[in-house]
Amino acid sequence: MLHPKIDDIKVAHQRIKPHIHNTPVLTSQAINGVCGSSLFFKCENFQKVGAFKIRGATNAVQLLSDDEAAKGVATHSSGNHGAALALAARTRGVKAWVVMPENSSEIKKQAVAAYGAEVILCESTLEGRELALKKVVESTGANFIHPFNDSRIIAGQGTAALELLEEIPDLDVVLAPVGGGGLISGTALTVSAISPKTKVIAAEPEEADDAYRSFQQGTLIPLTHSNTIADGLRTSLGDLTFDIIQSHVAEIITVSEKKIIEAMRLIWERMKIIVEPSAAVPLAVLLTEREIFQGLRIGLILSGGNLDLEKLPWN
Amino acid sequence: MLHPKIDDIKVAHQRIKPHIHNTPVLTSQAINGVCGSSLFFKCENFQKVGAFKIRGATNAVQLLSDDEAAKGVATHSSGNHGAALALAARTRGVKAWVVMPENSSEIKKQAVAAYGAEVILCESTLEGRELALKKVVESTGANFIHPFNDSRIIAGQGTAALELLEEIPDLDVVLAPVGGGGLISGTALTVSAISPKTKVIAAEPEEADDAYRSFQQGTLIPLTHSNTIADGLRTSLGDLTFDIIQSHVAEIITVSEKKIIEAMRLIWERMKIIVEPSAAVPLAVLLTEREIFQGLRIGLILSGGNLDLEKLPWN
Repeated sequence: MLHPKIDDIKVAHQRIKPHIHNTPVLTSQAINGVCGSSLFFKCENFQKVGAFKIRGATNAVQLLSDDEAAKGVATHSSGNHGAALALAARTRGVKAWVVMPENSSEIKKQAVAAYGAEVILCESTLEGRELALKKVVESTGANFIHPFNDSRIIAGQGTAALELLEEIPDLDVVLAPVGGGGLISGTALTVSAISPKTKVIAAEPEEADDAYRSFQQGTLIPLTHSNTIADGLRTSLGDLTFDIIQSHVAEIITVSEKKIIEAMRLIWERMKIIVEPSAAVPLAVLLTEREIFQGLRIGLILSGGNLDLEKLPWN
Repeated sequence: MLHPKIDDIKVAHQRIKPHIHNTPVLTSQAINGVCGSSLFFKCENFQKVGAFKIRGATNAVQLLSDDEAAKGVATHSSGNHGAALALAARTRGVKAWVVMPENSSEIKKQAVAAYGAEVILCESTLEGRELALKKVVESTGANFIHPFNDSRIIAGQGTAALELLEEIPDLDVVLAPVGGGGLISGTALTVSAISPKTKVIAAEPEEADDAYRSFQQGTLIPLTHSNTIADGLRTSLGDLTFDIIQSHVAEIITVSEKKIIEAMRLIWERMKIIVEPSAAVPLAVLLTEREIFQGLRIGLILSGGNLDLEKLPWN
């Protein structure tokens, strides 16, 4: 399978730069103290649409030829990729269709619609989603942009680690969450090329541990069902992301729901920034496996900051 | 009365610089769109102890002679000034006593104690507080550092606006909240000296509008009681801060509790940062008086980010 090369990621960065934020890298003496290591948080919660997803979506949409782009883009998403593709399409001046489960929250539907996409509701099953997407693509000719199992998307997501390493070059470890695997595989490709001595570790909820089990067994095991609070990570790997993870990720570490909530609260209270539960999973790894990481310099990708402020996990 | 001069504020800045953060100035296209103006948020929620209060406290403690400092410092506070004085004392290597109302939350007492101060509980009345403070000062010889009615404190608080103007020089307006008046009077002294064309406006909750009424009537009217959600602003002005406000602040604008909550939520949702209700009062002014501020370049001081995450105002 075709892995993006580091040059693809570098070119993607130049391509998307005018349309995204170079997000800050923050530190916290208090959290360093808790973990016994030096942490560098790449704040993709401050990114456009509130998540790293705009990187890959922008790269994919900008890579379309004018003829392709004229037909618009389509995807299925219950979360950040839908909003990201909607904004990326608006930036290019083309149409976007986003298939969303009919039980999506009003807030999420409105967010996607606010970026100018047409929202198409479907039954909240795999079949319902694929049928609705197929219909849209057939009737419009729109280009399907998969949320993660797409080398253009992966190259775009890899640009967050590129910026992180530009700012903080000498890291021992980089941690990112794993759901469908777009962010972690882009991160792993970037880090292994730019800083080969830096270990890339994927962070995953125990309650959605398909990546961990697939990695251990060397074969892709789909996630059947998960209610993890880290809602951005309730997704199975794709064949492309799994392939990159197998060859470029050192380890996958899983964490409990309790530790995810503890990590999220620590970030809110000590750093005064809002991150969604999925973004707290890498710090949850450090809270769980404190000893392994003692004294190391560790980059963490805070993947996003979108959540319902009326339903906080500690209330 | 002795107003700090701009040189006092500049010297204070050099004095405290090694001990505080130069906090970032953030912008939000989304909130600019809502307000129809260009906003620059000085993020003192990211400051040490989570509030601008460390600026004044550090300045006051550093200004003590060695003999004075050896006796330690004391104050009364139910909020951020207590934690700030505790940390400023620890930085100087001296003792701190903080008188707190016995009904203060456990979290607040622990925060002050965690910075190494001795917490002294008192009855939650003005008399109880003053009696407890008098006892501490008499028995220890500690230097009383008032939370705001003190020119050393005011000079320190004025350094936030100094940093803001260094980064964003050409502002039409600077807005800061007013409680006891330490922040707004320091801000007004700085801005009037460095950028005389820039208007300084104080933002106050309707439900704690003693500064507004004092300003209108030209005489200091104490706040008798308030339950405003902006708990940092439930304080009367002092004679020194009132005097500076009268001579250096252009206007005081009051806002409803509803608008404070709306502004706070807008900052949380769109900027992905955590601010306490008091810090949202300046943006509440812009949401309330949208027309007056159309098209202007406006600096807002986000005063702090400390609040109980289990009691959010929209839940």
